[in-house]
Amino acid sequence: MRLRVVLVEPLYEGNVGSVARAMKNFGFRELVLVNPCKIEDYASAMASHARDVLQMARSFASLPEALAGANLVVGTTGKRLDEAQHHLRLHLRVPCFTPRDLAEKLKGKEGTVALLLGREDCGLNSQELALCDMLVSIPTSSEYPVMNLSHSAAVLFYELSQTEDAEEGKVEMASGESLALLQEKTGSLLAEVSYPLHKVDFTLLMLRRILGRAELTQREARTLLGLIKRIRWKIGRERDEEPDLREENEMLEESSS
Amino acid sequence: MRLRVVLVEPLYEGNVGSVARAMKNFGFRELVLVNPCKIEDYASAMASHARDVLQMARSFASLPEALAGANLVVGTTGKRLDEAQHHLRLHLRVPCFTPRDLAEKLKGKEGTVALLLGREDCGLNSQELALCDMLVSIPTSSEYPVMNLSHSAAVLFYELSQTEDAEEGKVEMASGESLALLQEKTGSLLAEVSYPLHKVDFTLLMLRRILGRAELTQREARTLLGLIKRIRWKIGRERDEEPDLREENEMLEESSS
Repeated sequence: MRLRVVLVEPLYEGNVGSVARAMKNFGFRELVLVNPCKIEDYASAMASHARDVLQMARSFASLPEALAGANLVVGTTGKRLDEAQHHLRLHLRVPCFTPRDLAEKLKGKEGTVALLLGREDCGLNSQELALCDMLVSIPTSSEYPVMNLSHSAAVLFYELSQTEDAEEGKVEMASGESLALLQEKTGSLLAEVSYPLHKVDFTLLMLRRILGRAELTQREARTLLGLIKRIRWKIGRERDEEPDLREENEMLEESSS
Repeated sequence: MRLRVVLVEPLYEGNVGSVARAMKNFGFRELVLVNPCKIEDYASAMASHARDVLQMARSFASLPEALAGANLVVGTTGKRLDEAQHHLRLHLRVPCFTPRDLAEKLKGKEGTVALLLGREDCGLNSQELALCDMLVSIPTSSEYPVMNLSHSAAVLFYELSQTEDAEEGKVEMASGESLALLQEKTGSLLAEVSYPLHKVDFTLLMLRRILGRAELTQREARTLLGLIKRIRWKIGRERDEEPDLREENEMLEESSS
């Protein structure tokens, strides 16, 4: 498991530096910034001996760019989900874990996990949360639940650094491309079966949630893609040729090896 | 268990304020300072909404005074125990725990636990360590093991605040019948799209695993059943009628309520 730490629109450079330090303390190196504040001397001072992590950080103008290539997207959220976020979470059923349960879930997985940390004042917005496969929330006191950004980061890194030692069977997680392809092909399939138009977006999102929660492997993603291909071929059989069985058989051989 | 946080000769007021904030985030209130730096505006700013914790903090000139009335004294230490400290630890046989094991040990205990956090630059000295009943050490990367003081504090408070009760919003999980139906209908669908016979069992099992891992809700199971019904209708449209849209719309209304 490779962790990509994504800071979304951080407001204070000191926090960015502190997060870089906490990352290195727990053996993480990939820092990505989305539309950040200016990163200058104070960030560097707070990073201390993790200046290399800070210097290697990549910046992007938008979150989707920052997520390119990630196999799993995990958003962090405080207890104070506002009404809209709360509704969103229930509606989409994005699962929300404690840091420990998240670490447990990621044990033995291979692939890139993007961990999103939001703005110091208002966290991640609904659009950003909608891009997440799952959420993680640190259990804090209801009296004062709002943690400092780098403190939350330290607690999360502490937990996530303990996922490495499970050396039993690593599993290759589905690539971002396969997941996008699944989404695209499912969309086409819905259109071809005259799925009610006003329900398409909702159902596609629900499917994405289900597959996200299931932490699909690359092999499973391929099998699902093959199945969809075959269904679509059947539906429009006058037009197309039967899917290449050799291809499917190769997949099967691979999967049983 | 009552936690007393003891900062031994902290050098930077910002850290003292940050520690106060992290304390309140995890429900702790008793802060004691031994021979601290000046505590002024910056500490207060870093404490944010935990200024009350900072204001109630007591200061002492020596560590023994700060420990008065404590039932158990726990020292924090980094990986870089120097020779003398290492020797001392072996000599005194002070046990050293991970934060998690310490939390486990303290579970259900009554009394005051003093948690000692040392200076930013050199931690606790040998004399101070000799006053400890046990030590706690956060497992960090050997490449850069030195954590920021308030980060260590946050990780320790996070562990020490752990309690069992997590009251999550309840969600109706998919019934066994729905899951069995999904399995059955998917089987029919595979047959209808001429899915290679020798692969059917394998693919059905994989789908069951995926949906099992996703911990499907009843609503999601119904949506998937509706989708399969529609695909099957499309495939054999000469024979059957279009699926009942009223039924699908009821589901939609329900899901958006």
